Amino acid sequence: MTTPLDDQRNYRLPPVCILGLGLIGGSIMRDLAARGERVYGYNRSRSGAYAANKEGFDASTDLSATLDRAAGDEALIIIAVPMSAVESILDNIAARAPHCGITDVVSVKKPVYDLVRSRGLAPRYVGGHPMSGTENSGWNASHVGLFERAAWAVAYDWAAERTDAGEPVDPSWTTLFAQVCTLAALSGAEAVPVTVHHHDEAVARVSHLPHVIAESLAIVGDHGGTLAQSLAAGSFKGATRVAGTDPELVRNMCETNAEALVPVLDEFISLLGSARTALAGDTPTVKALSEAGNRAFVRMTARSGARRESVSPVRISSRPVMRVHPGAPGWVGQLKQIEDLGGRVEVF
Amino acid sequence: MTTPLDDQRNYRLPPVCILGLGLIGGSIMRDLAARGERVYGYNRSRSGAYAANKEGFDASTDLSATLDRAAGDEALIIIAVPMSAVESILDNIAARAPHCGITDVVSVKKPVYDLVRSRGLAPRYVGGHPMSGTENSGWNASHVGLFERAAWAVAYDWAAERTDAGEPVDPSWTTLFAQVCTLAALSGAEAVPVTVHHHDEAVARVSHLPHVIAESLAIVGDHGGTLAQSLAAGSFKGATRVAGTDPELVRNMCETNAEALVPVLDEFISLLGSARTALAGDTPTVKALSEAGNRAFVRMTARSGARRESVSPVRISSRPVMRVHPGAPGWVGQLKQIEDLGGRVEVF
Repeated sequence: MTTPLDDQRNYRLPPVCILGLGLIGGSIMRDLAARGERVYGYNRSRSGAYAANKEGFDASTDLSATLDRAAGDEALIIIAVPMSAVESILDNIAARAPHCGITDVVSVKKPVYDLVRSRGLAPRYVGGHPMSGTENSGWNASHVGLFERAAWAVAYDWAAERTDAGEPVDPSWTTLFAQVCTLAALSGAEAVPVTVHHHDEAVARVSHLPHVIAESLAIVGDHGGTLAQSLAAGSFKGATRVAGTDPELVRNMCETNAEALVPVLDEFISLLGSARTALAGDTPTVKALSEAGNRAFVRMTARSGARRESVSPVRISSRPVMRVHPGAPGWVGQLKQIEDLGGRVEVF
Repeated sequence: MTTPLDDQRNYRLPPVCILGLGLIGGSIMRDLAARGERVYGYNRSRSGAYAANKEGFDASTDLSATLDRAAGDEALIIIAVPMSAVESILDNIAARAPHCGITDVVSVKKPVYDLVRSRGLAPRYVGGHPMSGTENSGWNASHVGLFERAAWAVAYDWAAERTDAGEPVDPSWTTLFAQVCTLAALSGAEAVPVTVHHHDEAVARVSHLPHVIAESLAIVGDHGGTLAQSLAAGSFKGATRVAGTDPELVRNMCETNAEALVPVLDEFISLLGSARTALAGDTPTVKALSEAGNRAFVRMTARSGARRESVSPVRISSRPVMRVHPGAPGWVGQLKQIEDLGGRVEVF
């Protein structure tokens, strides 16, 4: 029996150069190294690079030297820095390694794509976003298996734009797309094709709004003083966990995706306003909200992420799968179909 | 070395009669039985009682017979039904077992206390609320250890009212208070003294608001369709988990605590409104929110619940503790001090 990964051995990766060895970049480095891939990286902070080297990884604090090396061995470059540092990193890549394939793991996709395009790097870029993280950050929080069964959004806008314009997709881009899907698979994740616009709208709902909520709820709980702190249990802890995230990272996510986040926040505030009205009436009720919320929860749970079969120890993905040969006739149309389903793509 | 439980052996429990063998009542039955206490109960649904009996527990579907038995052996009665059924249960207790000590595990305390008082049962009542639960319900979801290290709010209003009025506290009430603290300890929980008003305000913040948020966020996520469902990860799942709760139970919690919940909901909506304004400006920012939210999170985490020491496998409570001898001079004043600290009480 072949696994998705066996099929993808056609696309074993070139050397991988990770720029930024924090929680995400560091975890990718560990996963790739564990799979026997060639991987090295750059980290701005000396302490992170030192810790990585001490564990036997290949990390440098010299960005220029790292990019020269990437250019020399035609590495796949992964941008794993916060959004606020992407512009400067792209300038360095454009100057020193413009022919390398580029992907990224930033939590918004359109702002990155705009920066990429404005530098003429779009033909060598396939955006990515692994939907996995914790409230911790930095190399010391990174670990093998962080992305196991997670969705890894892979943006196919470049191919869609060419196809919509009746133009061919450059084979080097097609190969890069397959490599990024393989990168996701090697990290244990499931590649979910997205366009940057759809991605940013979806993550505003399921990631950035939850962060805004967590911060706000932490404040409301804290206003309750020590008694509220003492009585806080699972529902509070679950909803506020990501308020433990470094505020700078939250700013990077939410501020750069403000365009998509504001209307989603309005939708949420409007629901709460209705709940408030129904609760403040003569006969307080949350009937409509709790029933609609529970139905929505059941749908989200049934369809999102991986589930564990009751008997088998193997976790089964609940995402529909489509096997796609990048560059084959109609392949971009297939990606659009998968995106509509929130499905995963396996390249062969 | 003596443990808190050893000290509380002075207050070994009478037989315990649990009315309602769902997640909470069923888990208490299991914990008490595992400790060798005498425990039996009533459950409205035949399937729940049947399942309990099949596992060797002593469960009946006959409320009258169960209350007659409780009256006969002077049991401690635990009301473990949803708020909507409390009134009818209290009427039955008043009719058949009015001399038994009564406690409850309902998630609001003032509405229960009002019903208790209107039936003249207050001298035989000490309200309780174990701060532990899951999104599942019913006997089959119950399990040993559900309350391990959880806060178990224990209401001392009756004693405070007597003391404030310069009247003595009936020794039978004092004994009952100690028994309820012992019940919490036997279940692995930590007794946190509360007044019903402070309790309801605090749980509006840390439990009922999170439920309203979970329902609303589930709906907003679901509006994102299958792609949002596919991309939903930890932050979304953590914040929406309790939307899996039976909507009837959510209604029972939130509707009966509407008086405390509405102002807390207003506070939350106001914070989101400020966040929305800051995000919709020319330079979108969540700086103020993310920094205040993170500080609040750190405070809540530092002070709430139990933590695991880095070396020791033993979980250490982070709640300050005060040892109190119920009925001793100044003991009600001590309870007020502990409540202000969100601390736990150990009776001796």
